[in-house]
Amino acid sequence: MNKTPIILDCDPGHDDAIAILLAGSNPSIELLGITVTCGNQTLPKTSRNALNLVQYLDIDVPVCLGVEEPLVRPVRVAPEIHGETGLDGFDFPPLIRQADPRHAVDFMIETLLNSTRKITMVTTGPMTNLALAMRKEPRIKQHIKEIVFMGGSYTYGNVTPAAEFNILADPEAAHIIFTSGLPLKMFGLDVTRQVLVLPEIIERMARLHNKASELFEKLMVVYNVNQKRVFGLDGGPLHDPLTIAYLIDPSVVTLTNMHCEIDISHGPSGGRTNCDVLNYGKKSGNTLVATAIDVEKFWTIIETGLQRYKN
Amino acid sequence: MNKTPIILDCDPGHDDAIAILLAGSNPSIELLGITVTCGNQTLPKTSRNALNLVQYLDIDVPVCLGVEEPLVRPVRVAPEIHGETGLDGFDFPPLIRQADPRHAVDFMIETLLNSTRKITMVTTGPMTNLALAMRKEPRIKQHIKEIVFMGGSYTYGNVTPAAEFNILADPEAAHIIFTSGLPLKMFGLDVTRQVLVLPEIIERMARLHNKASELFEKLMVVYNVNQKRVFGLDGGPLHDPLTIAYLIDPSVVTLTNMHCEIDISHGPSGGRTNCDVLNYGKKSGNTLVATAIDVEKFWTIIETGLQRYKN
Amino acid sequence: MNKTPIILDCDPGHDDAIAILLAGSNPSIELLGITVTCGNQTLPKTSRNALNLVQYLDIDVPVCLGVEEPLVRPVRVAPEIHGETGLDGFDFPPLIRQADPRHAVDFMIETLLNSTRKITMVTTGPMTNLALAMRKEPRIKQHIKEIVFMGGSYTYGNVTPAAEFNILADPEAAHIIFTSGLPLKMFGLDVTRQVLVLPEIIERMARLHNKASELFEKLMVVYNVNQKRVFGLDGGPLHDPLTIAYLIDPSVVTLTNMHCEIDISHGPSGGRTNCDVLNYGKKSGNTLVATAIDVEKFWTIIETGLQRYKN
Amino acid sequence: MNKTPIILDCDPGHDDAIAILLAGSNPSIELLGITVTCGNQTLPKTSRNALNLVQYLDIDVPVCLGVEEPLVRPVRVAPEIHGETGLDGFDFPPLIRQADPRHAVDFMIETLLNSTRKITMVTTGPMTNLALAMRKEPRIKQHIKEIVFMGGSYTYGNVTPAAEFNILADPEAAHIIFTSGLPLKMFGLDVTRQVLVLPEIIERMARLHNKASELFEKLMVVYNVNQKRVFGLDGGPLHDPLTIAYLIDPSVVTLTNMHCEIDISHGPSGGRTNCDVLNYGKKSGNTLVATAIDVEKFWTIIETGLQRYKN
Repeated sequence: MNKTPIILDCDPGHDDAIAILLAGSNPSIELLGITVTCGNQTLPKTSRNALNLVQYLDIDVPVCLGVEEPLVRPVRVAPEIHGETGLDGFDFPPLIRQADPRHAVDFMIETLLNSTRKITMVTTGPMTNLALAMRKEPRIKQHIKEIVFMGGSYTYGNVTPAAEFNILADPEAAHIIFTSGLPLKMFGLDVTRQVLVLPEIIERMARLHNKASELFEKLMVVYNVNQKRVFGLDGGPLHDPLTIAYLIDPSVVTLTNMHCEIDISHGPSGGRTNCDVLNYGKKSGNTLVATAIDVEKFWTIIETGLQRYKN
Repeated sequence: MNKTPIILDCDPGHDDAIAILLAGSNPSIELLGITVTCGNQTLPKTSRNALNLVQYLDIDVPVCLGVEEPLVRPVRVAPEIHGETGLDGFDFPPLIRQADPRHAVDFMIETLLNSTRKITMVTTGPMTNLALAMRKEPRIKQHIKEIVFMGGSYTYGNVTPAAEFNILADPEAAHIIFTSGLPLKMFGLDVTRQVLVLPEIIERMARLHNKASELFEKLMVVYNVNQKRVFGLDGGPLHDPLTIAYLIDPSVVTLTNMHCEIDISHGPSGGRTNCDVLNYGKKSGNTLVATAIDVEKFWTIIETGLQRYKN
Repeated sequence: MNKTPIILDCDPGHDDAIAILLAGSNPSIELLGITVTCGNQTLPKTSRNALNLVQYLDIDVPVCLGVEEPLVRPVRVAPEIHGETGLDGFDFPPLIRQADPRHAVDFMIETLLNSTRKITMVTTGPMTNLALAMRKEPRIKQHIKEIVFMGGSYTYGNVTPAAEFNILADPEAAHIIFTSGLPLKMFGLDVTRQVLVLPEIIERMARLHNKASELFEKLMVVYNVNQKRVFGLDGGPLHDPLTIAYLIDPSVVTLTNMHCEIDISHGPSGGRTNCDVLNYGKKSGNTLVATAIDVEKFWTIIETGLQRYKN
Repeated sequence: MNKTPIILDCDPGHDDAIAILLAGSNPSIELLGITVTCGNQTLPKTSRNALNLVQYLDIDVPVCLGVEEPLVRPVRVAPEIHGETGLDGFDFPPLIRQADPRHAVDFMIETLLNSTRKITMVTTGPMTNLALAMRKEPRIKQHIKEIVFMGGSYTYGNVTPAAEFNILADPEAAHIIFTSGLPLKMFGLDVTRQVLVLPEIIERMARLHNKASELFEKLMVVYNVNQKRVFGLDGGPLHDPLTIAYLIDPSVVTLTNMHCEIDISHGPSGGRTNCDVLNYGKKSGNTLVATAIDVEKFWTIIETGLQRYKN
């Protein structure tokens, strides 16, 4: 079987945790490394969370720390959703695993330039690390197969009426990615809002009774409490794992080719992903945007991913 | 029966024409006057269309001409949808009816200040006339019951990915309206995109065999040709009449209270109606936004409106 | 002698007061009317000040009230410079003079459309009234000889590092003026900063011992106290009268033709008059900008203007 | 004598060339390295120019190549001033000197983190390299003594009416520097416009008859031809060397403490350095801005610098 080599850039985060869990166990995915960015929480916290996750799940990959701030804007974090630690809800064992000494940006550049295969870059947080890598070493573009990311919305946002968190947190980084000329696959709120971790989903996963399902259950219970308080939702949208689920089984979503531009203004719609849904602008598409999702297939992928972990 | 007194500010336009047709025949609506703005076409063309319509339909109201340009931005017209005349498709008899000598802005101010009843302002084009009237004479606000308008979108636009035509054509005017403190009811693309004049609708209306149904049929055939060419739609969305349909029967839509702000930046999302659908901003709502529509009820209202015209 | 017919649109204001004083007494100027806008203070205050001034100086012209707010932005006033009344420092006799019943916008339109001579429009405050008149009745442009205004700066501002008060208070109105295609003459901070009402100037004018010099002295003493506190200046810049001084004797300044555009963004430099001093943009000029001033000649014009008033 | 250790980040460029020349010969300056950015020309050209200069002038320092593009905006170069090569006018001998293998960003980070002394960062081009280094490794801030740069203007620009080239080319990078909290010294157009390389200056320097004066003469002759054509100037402003001249003799300028912010909007004044000259905003200053220059002292420093090179 041909494995898909990926680097996963993330800001764990409850839904990032499930993305790591999926990516770390699937036989069709070769996880080359995890790079960490600020986002759902500050870099020290998201880094600690990433290390805790790979130690607990026994995933043997380098974890490299990246930027502490977005390119241009002030740091924006989401403690109201992910808690003070950025991953409230689970008591990890004492942390022994250490971060790789390389900076995330240098890890990306080295890994890409040294690879004979094209690599899939997956981002589930603000895109600062990858954008910085591209600016520092533009030749990496030739080694990237595609960029698969959670972020954006062609309808409405989840932080402002116009913008989604990951893009809003660093619109200039997103702009660098969207204008890179590379193949982009966008998994935005338009579809991730349809995969809600309702209580029955938590129960279903909890029945697997292994370390992964235990992690899932405890994290999602807290996630849902926060989603309920902030958005009034009975089940939080499980945004980030959709990127990995797509790599495992592309039929889980419908993708539509659109021309997308980031609103990098500092106005009220800053951070919006302006996707030309009906192609009024008559420009050729630069992004395959997920426009429909097979909800049951998604949960089956999650369930299978959890099952791969033994006690 | 208590009639609702309204002033209809419009830029006819195919769908404006149907709004005028509805407003001019319904016993529950007292049409005090029609004011005209630039929008779907230039002011001389939309004015001529308005006069042609009231003459043909024998609607006895003053028609007052308004502004030739938006407040701040250059004129934006839509000949690709409404044709060279702004109302392509129907041969009107020779035009005898003349415009009222009063400027639209002064007509609004006089009518409002002299009225003992509060008046409903309906706008189906860019909001320049009403905005100008408010700036020139702020006391008119106390005489306005509510502002019922076609415009905006809380999802995506129809000229840019962010913005709808009426708001994009004069965002500053819309901003003046949205910050006026008056009750607002917004009928945007989110619902008007659901009432498509498909061929079977045209056939259904044509069966009425009167002057109104003849007008409807001929206008809509051309409208659909343009909508097909520009947007690939088999039936154009019948935007503007929804405002009048709502006044005739409020149960035709579901309204949701939201805080809405116009993006008046000159950036890529300029003209967007940023509606806080899920109330992330925790501000009290300033607009009742149509979020669902009873499509069959809408067509019945249109049908009944056409029927009121005899040969 | 051929008199120059002008309409003076102002927001008195200490320096506006001296502009009115100059315009009301000079045999070469035919003051057709004074229109009032909000600016240095709110409209009720600037209106009262205008009426007090014409009554005290016995200037027989209509005074018409205009807008209460800028076109798009919130009202911005300058009590730190002009005091709570907008004209602190002089005790006027009881006010009997009444405002003309016409709105400033309508007075402008009527006067211009009915005039066989072209009229010079002078503005010494935010340009809202004139902009509104142009939008409501574009044909007035053909009756305007030129627009002579105090406002802007091609170097740095006096409210923000980028912008001057009159333009910043209503950038969209200024944009309408700057894109009107009419001849513009701009008297900005670049030159008005050079005519400081230093104590010796106040003494010089006070020696005239008439009602006008008394007004000048008392107003300027308070103006200087405020200018010292806010800007650390020993003498406030006497901005507004330069427009009238120019009409009396054009040799008081050097004018340079430049292409100027208003920054109507909502960013940090909003309200800036971007004047292409060295013509990098290779566009033809749209504004004659004052770039040098004969300071002594200016004070002589002021002195002569004061002298024309008898006790 | 205590030498000032500096890293010089530049985009040569005619005036950068003279800055390198000055920095490479002065006994009070310890030039640790030259880092190159795009700006006056593309990176391959500015890099070649930098290598040619250090080879010709026999300056023994590492030359490290940096970014090929600004952080967010498209590349902007100035061939109309600096010619097709970026340094038109001088025929360098065949190039043997090679670039250091380290990326400019990594050279900065390594040099700073490994230094026990605080280092002065000098930039004479767009600030992208330094900004990228700060984002990648924020701890370098503690090793920077101050940032001395040519760029900006508190009056008017030289590419747009609002903005100067170096800042306009990468406003976001400048924003990162201006909000870094580090001591900043700004040498902008306000002073560099006063040091014009008039023909008599070229003659004066040419009389020194050494390799440096020959370089100066030939470069400046071409520079002036371009400045004349583009700006109508008889002598081009010698912008960049003022940074080094200041380090050699601080009394060459007067510095004033101001609060400065970069306009990072995408509007018409984007790239402006909004310096609060008169401290209207009552914020504490973050930049020492050069507000006056001793022109003769400047030329003496240049002359002395040229003299240090022997044939």
